[in-house]
Amino acid sequence: MISINKIKNLKSLHQKKYRKQEKLFLLEGYRLINQALLAKANFKEVWLTSESKNSSFGKNIIEELKNQNIPFNIAPKKIIKQISDSLNDQGIIALLPIPKYIKLNKIPDRSVYLDGISDPGNMGTILRTASWFGVKSIFYSSKCVDPFNSKVIRSAMGAHFYFSHLELISELEQFEKFKSMNVEILGAEMDGKPVRSSVDLNYAKWMLVLGNEAHGISDDVREYISGSISIKGSSELESLNVSIAAGILLYSLV
Amino acid sequence: MISINKIKNLKSLHQKKYRKQEKLFLLEGYRLINQALLAKANFKEVWLTSESKNSSFGKNIIEELKNQNIPFNIAPKKIIKQISDSLNDQGIIALLPIPKYIKLNKIPDRSVYLDGISDPGNMGTILRTASWFGVKSIFYSSKCVDPFNSKVIRSAMGAHFYFSHLELISELEQFEKFKSMNVEILGAEMDGKPVRSSVDLNYAKWMLVLGNEAHGISDDVREYISGSISIKGSSELESLNVSIAAGILLYSLV
Repeated sequence: MISINKIKNLKSLHQKKYRKQEKLFLLEGYRLINQALLAKANFKEVWLTSESKNSSFGKNIIEELKNQNIPFNIAPKKIIKQISDSLNDQGIIALLPIPKYIKLNKIPDRSVYLDGISDPGNMGTILRTASWFGVKSIFYSSKCVDPFNSKVIRSAMGAHFYFSHLELISELEQFEKFKSMNVEILGAEMDGKPVRSSVDLNYAKWMLVLGNEAHGISDDVREYISGSISIKGSSELESLNVSIAAGILLYSLV
Repeated sequence: MISINKIKNLKSLHQKKYRKQEKLFLLEGYRLINQALLAKANFKEVWLTSESKNSSFGKNIIEELKNQNIPFNIAPKKIIKQISDSLNDQGIIALLPIPKYIKLNKIPDRSVYLDGISDPGNMGTILRTASWFGVKSIFYSSKCVDPFNSKVIRSAMGAHFYFSHLELISELEQFEKFKSMNVEILGAEMDGKPVRSSVDLNYAKWMLVLGNEAHGISDDVREYISGSISIKGSSELESLNVSIAAGILLYSLV
């Protein structure tokens, strides 16, 4: 049984304030929970409906939960639906502590800085793409959507469990540390130098800066940018989606 | 004034069935309407609140509406909100006929085939990216989300107005026509040949096939694929998001 208080607590985790306070977040659905299990993420507890438990997906997950000694409980459909953020919940939900990432002491050779990414789908897709290309260090500004927002988690498809850094950088002087270590700070900008192939982006150490969907890179951050790059199109459209630009640039960088 | 019946009609256009029946769709917000005006899209009518009319965005749009002889009317905030599909509507909404695309007679040299793309954000982003790279021909299967779904429209950011083809292909024999014209039919697949640079994708004529988010390319369609390609990652994640894969492959193809 889950107490009413517990349900209230779990639901509160859909708000950034409570996630920050409790240092916990929720994971929903088979694919995500499976990814987190594969990544040997730290779990606190899992709840699933008896239908889920008896599904083929559920059976696999329960085996792995047992293997990893993660406590799980059966909960009524109605309760899972109440806690869930998704309209089509799959009857499975997990509670996890927010992973402990490394603090920024050693400067990473490859990183992404998100400067005001506001759409959770974009943020999640960028995290997924960065992780796909082996980039383990993500930094973000205070104007970004919270990376543990449930929609971000959903689009990131487990990327959160593979990063070394996932850290808010609000003191822009931090960029000086990157510069002093010869990290090229590249800004994705509409009027940047067009990237034609990966040869154009042959840097040993880099940080890719991605700006806000509507306003681009902020003036404060632009001061630290050493190279401005873009992806040329042959279209009358205003721009590419920021996560697509990130995908093409990361592909060319790695 | 908009009559209650008109409001009902307009609202019904959020459903595919009525869009198909009426051959009309809605466009919301400044950026999209502005893009459509730039593209000299066919408009039927525009409604905006008096607040929108007097905003700087609104003034520019009204000037252009007058230039292009497009009828517009002032409507109360409440009415726009009722018609709108968006939670944060900008107080401006337009009614447009679904563009008339060319029917498939001449086979295009470059095209994208969407095989069961179900997420409207993915579909819209792929359309936006294809348009950015100058691909003017999009085909899609009956299992795809409707390209005139309002969320698709929103993510596509005006791409709809620049295509020559945007056509449902349900008779797969059509692929034979492409093959007979020496069009390379490339499938984006997890186990395809890894693309390292654009040199790997040096085709004069191609069609890029993108499969469903969870299940990939369907067996029926796979029969027609002449080359299977992928984007190599260095990660434990399952896959890239389909729109990101599309972005990288289109960038490499064009």
